[in-house]
Amino acid sequence: MAPQLDGYFQKVDALSDAFIERLRQAVAIPSISSEHARRPDVIRMGHWLADQLTKLGATAELRPLGKQPGTDLDLPPVVLARYGNDKNKRTILVYGHYDVQPAEKSDGWDTEPFELTIKEDGRMCGRGATDDKGPVLGWLNAIEAHQAAGIEFPVNLLMCFEGMEEYGSEGLDELIMAEGKKFFADADAVCISDNYWLGTEKPCLTYGLRGCNYYSIEISGPGADLHSGVFGGTAQEPMTDLVRIMASLVDTNGKILIPGIAEQVAPVTPDEEGLYDDIAFSMETLHDSLGSKTTIFEDKKSTLMARWRYPSLSLHGIEGAFSAPGAKTVIPAKVIGKFSIRTVPNMEIEKTNELVRLYIEDVFKKLGSKNTLKVYPQHCGKWWVASPNHWNFTAAAKATERVWGVKPDFTREGGSIPVTLTFEQATGKNVLLLPMGSSTDGAHSINEKLDKRNYIEGIKLLGAYLHYVAEEPMN
Amino acid sequence: MAPQLDGYFQKVDALSDAFIERLRQAVAIPSISSEHARRPDVIRMGHWLADQLTKLGATAELRPLGKQPGTDLDLPPVVLARYGNDKNKRTILVYGHYDVQPAEKSDGWDTEPFELTIKEDGRMCGRGATDDKGPVLGWLNAIEAHQAAGIEFPVNLLMCFEGMEEYGSEGLDELIMAEGKKFFADADAVCISDNYWLGTEKPCLTYGLRGCNYYSIEISGPGADLHSGVFGGTAQEPMTDLVRIMASLVDTNGKILIPGIAEQVAPVTPDEEGLYDDIAFSMETLHDSLGSKTTIFEDKKSTLMARWRYPSLSLHGIEGAFSAPGAKTVIPAKVIGKFSIRTVPNMEIEKTNELVRLYIEDVFKKLGSKNTLKVYPQHCGKWWVASPNHWNFTAAAKATERVWGVKPDFTREGGSIPVTLTFEQATGKNVLLLPMGSSTDGAHSINEKLDKRNYIEGIKLLGAYLHYVAEEPMN
Repeated sequence: MAPQLDGYFQKVDALSDAFIERLRQAVAIPSISSEHARRPDVIRMGHWLADQLTKLGATAELRPLGKQPGTDLDLPPVVLARYGNDKNKRTILVYGHYDVQPAEKSDGWDTEPFELTIKEDGRMCGRGATDDKGPVLGWLNAIEAHQAAGIEFPVNLLMCFEGMEEYGSEGLDELIMAEGKKFFADADAVCISDNYWLGTEKPCLTYGLRGCNYYSIEISGPGADLHSGVFGGTAQEPMTDLVRIMASLVDTNGKILIPGIAEQVAPVTPDEEGLYDDIAFSMETLHDSLGSKTTIFEDKKSTLMARWRYPSLSLHGIEGAFSAPGAKTVIPAKVIGKFSIRTVPNMEIEKTNELVRLYIEDVFKKLGSKNTLKVYPQHCGKWWVASPNHWNFTAAAKATERVWGVKPDFTREGGSIPVTLTFEQATGKNVLLLPMGSSTDGAHSINEKLDKRNYIEGIKLLGAYLHYVAEEPMN
Repeated sequence: MAPQLDGYFQKVDALSDAFIERLRQAVAIPSISSEHARRPDVIRMGHWLADQLTKLGATAELRPLGKQPGTDLDLPPVVLARYGNDKNKRTILVYGHYDVQPAEKSDGWDTEPFELTIKEDGRMCGRGATDDKGPVLGWLNAIEAHQAAGIEFPVNLLMCFEGMEEYGSEGLDELIMAEGKKFFADADAVCISDNYWLGTEKPCLTYGLRGCNYYSIEISGPGADLHSGVFGGTAQEPMTDLVRIMASLVDTNGKILIPGIAEQVAPVTPDEEGLYDDIAFSMETLHDSLGSKTTIFEDKKSTLMARWRYPSLSLHGIEGAFSAPGAKTVIPAKVIGKFSIRTVPNMEIEKTNELVRLYIEDVFKKLGSKNTLKVYPQHCGKWWVASPNHWNFTAAAKATERVWGVKPDFTREGGSIPVTLTFEQATGKNVLLLPMGSSTDGAHSINEKLDKRNYIEGIKLLGAYLHYVAEEPMN
């Protein structure tokens, strides 16, 4: 039986000015986690959030994470909160973050980044509007609208809001793992609202993320940087070896040249073949967001498969070489090439690392160089794929259709949100990514925005999702 | 008839403490041309030098060069000086520079860099001791010792000492060209003391330098830097194209892979074949200065030929890519690879530039990339080779044998000293490079030093050179 949601929806509409005011207050706190001088603002944001939750009748605590490694700075606390504790209801654990990316008006913003500015077309501009203060407040607003409408909250809600997401989520994994069987013990499923629609018009539910193995290739030879006039032609240069190795990893069309990588990739099933055609995604949109037409593929299906279900290899740069503007005639003594592989099912981290190491050592050996090679992973994060047939997704799909009038796309993403896998591992439960914002929100860019429509309908969506969750049969 | 130099030599020895004191005063002025805050010290150094020259009876003027382009900073003045104006004597034009490289004790110096510190083994440590304050003061000391010994100065001496050598010699070329037929009009030959012995024991005279063509390879595609999670596998990445191009330029053993470069190189003559065996140079010394055994060749002759008379290609780095420590999953939107070719006779600048451009465009075309390529030279400096049979060199060789008791090696260098070619072009006269310091002086490194022996014997050498110059027949 579909839940009766009209009263809730009407109350969300009626309270929309108050909900926007709440977002304005949140955006006004410049909780930039990467800037040490802003750390007090990040902590203030955590306190503000816990205070808002307490006023709504939730129990909220500020969990300290100790000092930031290598500094005297306190890490921002994690806000752990609970709303409802009814054994007869399902319990949903939600995650979000209250810190934001850096922003200065002088970066090129049209408006003050920490003053929420609402444009005529409904864009609500401000740092953190969409990433991730809007979605975090969505849960609070859903609670308030239920109270105002006199509608019983359909589930118990566990909340985990952190303040270091934009700066590596320092300390969070340990807390999540430690609380898996404690604070998060009765969670039946997890919902994270910290990603985006694939486009601007059609909502989506996200059930997969690629992993990321990040590597360093270090080549050293001379004892110190050399003058290319004096030593050019007489010394074997580490940069020469390094670019030849880097050139052997991937080609212009993204083909990974390391043997054994492609063999690990799960084959495309006939079912999957049909999935891509219906996804709301166009090459025009991709060209817009790319700012050029320099795509590898010309068609949607190949592009989505390359982003979601095939590995990719990107060369990020070189540490130790001359990188400034101008001209410097240096022979760098030690250079470190950086690249990463985005991983997909069924690639294994250790096997991939071994294939990378063996291949690079082999290429280097063939160069006949006297320099010294080291190759090693800097960090590795596993891919994640959830079952989109789980009741958690079914509930979210029904809620989406109810609010937006359209069946959502089931999508994967090319990037990684490591906390997703951590929650899955810590709780053993299904994790759903339920985005509020759209692809043009510019999460880490200037003029970040959340459309008013996405915010208000998104609040309805989060509430509706919890009602459908309460009704879905086990599967 | 060999000149009578014993009285001069004895006076140099007698005045050695005063000459070291003069060097101490010069080193104490931190005339770092590349640091804007030190500009007043550079200018002070120019004034100090002009004052010293005036006290010795030279006429000295401080020639202003205007503002440093793009700044409000005055360029340090060029000290133009003349000692003697006797139509019956030859006139020798000497060049040196009074500015120095940056230095901080915290860089790893054993002693304060701007306090000349004399070690038990005779090393006189201090920034600028060997590069180039010691040699510059060598000329002043030679004048003073002649006066003290009551020996007539054998030539007219024109001096050109600049204060921007370590920061691009801004404005100097124009001044030299303008003064070629004015202040420098009666110069019969030029002598520059701003390079080093090939080793530590045997003096040398230098008659050749390689040129340097410095190139940028710019590849751009996306409108802005991309996230490798979102775009990896779907966009053609400029870094991938760039490293593949850079890898196609040179191999581990220094072989330049650009067609047509090798064909421009002057063939080795039978005469030249025999030159290298006698040069005082060992692979052990090279390994020491390299700090490793990663040389391309195992033998002296191949190594010297590679340094002096063959071109080399070095990859310096990449601008626009990730170059910091750590891990960043960026796909750079625009990257600029930097490399240079050290050029030798008979390579032509324009022809070389054209070969480079055509080859890189061809390699890029074969990649099948949609990105955009630009390749262009940043700066080009021609190689220089003088005639070592000119009386200028013969005089210096005789002076070397008289002072050091050994015939000097006739050497070339792999690096460039662009002012050499400028003086040759402006005066139309033979230019000689007559080094004072040795290969271990560490001109641009921490613990820069000039050996006391090289300083004092070097003062004798400069004076003796002028006496032999006065006696050499025209050729």
